[in-house]
Amino acid sequence: MPKKLIVQKFGGSSVANVDRIQKVAQRVVSYKKKGFNLVVVVSALGDTTDELIELANKINSSPSEREMDMLLSTGEQISVALLAMAIHKLGVEAISFTGAQVGIITDTAHTKARIIKINAEKIQEALKRDKVVIVAGFQGISLNQDITTLGRGGSDLTAVALAKELKAYECEIYTDVKGIYTTDPRIEPKAKKITKITYDEMLEMASLGAQVMQVRSIEVAKKFNVPIHVRSSFKKDPGTMIIKEVKNMEEVVVSAITLNKAGAKITVCNVFDRPGIAARIFNELADKGISVDMIVQNVSHLRQTDISFTVNKPEAHKAIKIINKLKKQVGIKDVLQDSDIARISIVGVGMKSHPGVAGKMFEVLAKARINIEMISTSDISISCIVQKKLAEKAVRALHNKFGLAK
Amino acid sequence: MPKKLIVQKFGGSSVANVDRIQKVAQRVVSYKKKGFNLVVVVSALGDTTDELIELANKINSSPSEREMDMLLSTGEQISVALLAMAIHKLGVEAISFTGAQVGIITDTAHTKARIIKINAEKIQEALKRDKVVIVAGFQGISLNQDITTLGRGGSDLTAVALAKELKAYECEIYTDVKGIYTTDPRIEPKAKKITKITYDEMLEMASLGAQVMQVRSIEVAKKFNVPIHVRSSFKKDPGTMIIKEVKNMEEVVVSAITLNKAGAKITVCNVFDRPGIAARIFNELADKGISVDMIVQNVSHLRQTDISFTVNKPEAHKAIKIINKLKKQVGIKDVLQDSDIARISIVGVGMKSHPGVAGKMFEVLAKARINIEMISTSDISISCIVQKKLAEKAVRALHNKFGLAK
Repeated sequence: MPKKLIVQKFGGSSVANVDRIQKVAQRVVSYKKKGFNLVVVVSALGDTTDELIELANKINSSPSEREMDMLLSTGEQISVALLAMAIHKLGVEAISFTGAQVGIITDTAHTKARIIKINAEKIQEALKRDKVVIVAGFQGISLNQDITTLGRGGSDLTAVALAKELKAYECEIYTDVKGIYTTDPRIEPKAKKITKITYDEMLEMASLGAQVMQVRSIEVAKKFNVPIHVRSSFKKDPGTMIIKEVKNMEEVVVSAITLNKAGAKITVCNVFDRPGIAARIFNELADKGISVDMIVQNVSHLRQTDISFTVNKPEAHKAIKIINKLKKQVGIKDVLQDSDIARISIVGVGMKSHPGVAGKMFEVLAKARINIEMISTSDISISCIVQKKLAEKAVRALHNKFGLAK
Repeated sequence: MPKKLIVQKFGGSSVANVDRIQKVAQRVVSYKKKGFNLVVVVSALGDTTDELIELANKINSSPSEREMDMLLSTGEQISVALLAMAIHKLGVEAISFTGAQVGIITDTAHTKARIIKINAEKIQEALKRDKVVIVAGFQGISLNQDITTLGRGGSDLTAVALAKELKAYECEIYTDVKGIYTTDPRIEPKAKKITKITYDEMLEMASLGAQVMQVRSIEVAKKFNVPIHVRSSFKKDPGTMIIKEVKNMEEVVVSAITLNKAGAKITVCNVFDRPGIAARIFNELADKGISVDMIVQNVSHLRQTDISFTVNKPEAHKAIKIINKLKKQVGIKDVLQDSDIARISIVGVGMKSHPGVAGKMFEVLAKARINIEMISTSDISISCIVQKKLAEKAVRALHNKFGLAK
């Protein structure tokens, strides 16, 4: 029987120094000795990527994206060589490869390239010779033979894409937390590690601000049904499995509560309620590169309405300037900004078949005397904007009432 | 008329920090604006290579050479990306390449690979589009598609090999000195920068300890007659041209005086003078990896002789241990070591056709009351071992008497 293949991905904090690289090597070797074939994907050491970006910006404040990829891809190349050396030291054969060497072919969208295909012959060949294969995450090579990178968190994508291509038994994502939690344990000490979660819930959580895995990598895992195991680099306990379906899932209505304080709320007051005005506002914002998160518009009174939306705090000032320019043309009375807000979301695929979840959420918040300023819903999540100072209280109340600590 | 092509090589100290990278960019751009085509070869920033080696040794004291090359090649890759960004900042088009990308094909002798061929199409194409081409020094790619490095000082070799392949007008080696000097100006303030020197003299000086250029790169330059210009990264003045022939060269008998204090002298006393004994000793040393520099044996008296030789100081102890083991078998009476020695050499192609240079050298040293302990000669150099404390005095006396300060 051929050996089962596991793809393991270690992030920057897992290889931040010599000691940690040696610990990663020990873990890899322990799996090898259990009889698995291993492909190990590694990120750059600690803060290397940020340091290289800072260095580049000192030289050129708007560096060429091709050259940026040339620069940043060195971070992972250093990691793979060092990890190979550490595994050799433990007496196990290992060989490192850059993204280019293992044929991770991408488009030419430098700094955010998309994988077109993977020519995995080199990996297959090394696995046949019973070597641990170590692959530099985050990078590939374009059809022009230029080095490309896959965007922030791109090592996750490398790992998932390789797991798909090599038909791996599992893709393990090692990180500095023990898995996915029902909510942030720093806010609610009763938060529980989730054993199993669906791709859709994980996607929803990631887009709501959970930073455990890159969104694109979860999308790819979902598309090709790659089983993912998010777990701690520092502990042996199992973490959270991200999979297609969870048995008995319908019993679990809400899987997790997320909190995001990065947004600011902007309200455009007394807009004339006629077709095309909202389009005008949001097209203008998009043209200027501002990405808008929640949008809420109420029914109008006296042919006037208010439109509220959230943007990332650093972009709020720019957004207001843009709208002020539109004031006369569009007929806007006033623009208000509130940066002291937080977004609380409940996430769960069970919601689809359980009516009344939204009502329960609002009731919990009302009982805790927390005012809801905006509401937005998706298929498997409900988000409320509340005052920032009440955010933690809201998270704890919801975590308790939806029974997540059980 | 097509533009003249210059290959420029900048060493680690020339790109040690942001400020220096910007200065290099300014120099490159000034040549571009004068109408030259430019291929720029860059070493790793400052002490990057040494730092990476130290990091590797912390993880594995005898790291795999393949992985070492994977690791070290990142240093030059960082440099080329940053230099490209700095040139862009000055409004000039530039593109960086790794050794692999520009087709520097080597054998598989990791950490000391030899260049087999260069497929320069990518460079030619970029030059046609009027770009400054920046190439990572020191590295190539083996026929197995593994990253290789060319050994210490390998960026010089990259530059010379590219200059040959691209039929460059000149290969400029930028360094932290102004050129090649008649002797070390720290010892003799009257030392003069040499305007022109031959490949053979430069090779002799490099093997005698001058560290301006890698020996292999000079050999390649000589073989293919690549004109080399060694000059300062920090000054605009011309430096030293290394070329095939120097006009009026026969008038210049001695071109330079070198000094090397890195050696230790070992004397094997009262060896029986019979065939095969010297072979036995030096084969044994070679087998144990000790490289021997000068060897001197005098005529024998009473069928016994003394053999003296020099080795690098750190290897002296090991050499003596090896010889002591041979004592009985070979018939050696005693082994002496002297670490307080220095090697003084005079170098010049003119020597070939001027008898009496050796005699003049010995006379100068005698008049300065400096005792000569060993003598060794080549076609274009004469070396004497003297007591270390007298070395600087010897250099100054010779520099003066051979008229090098003129």
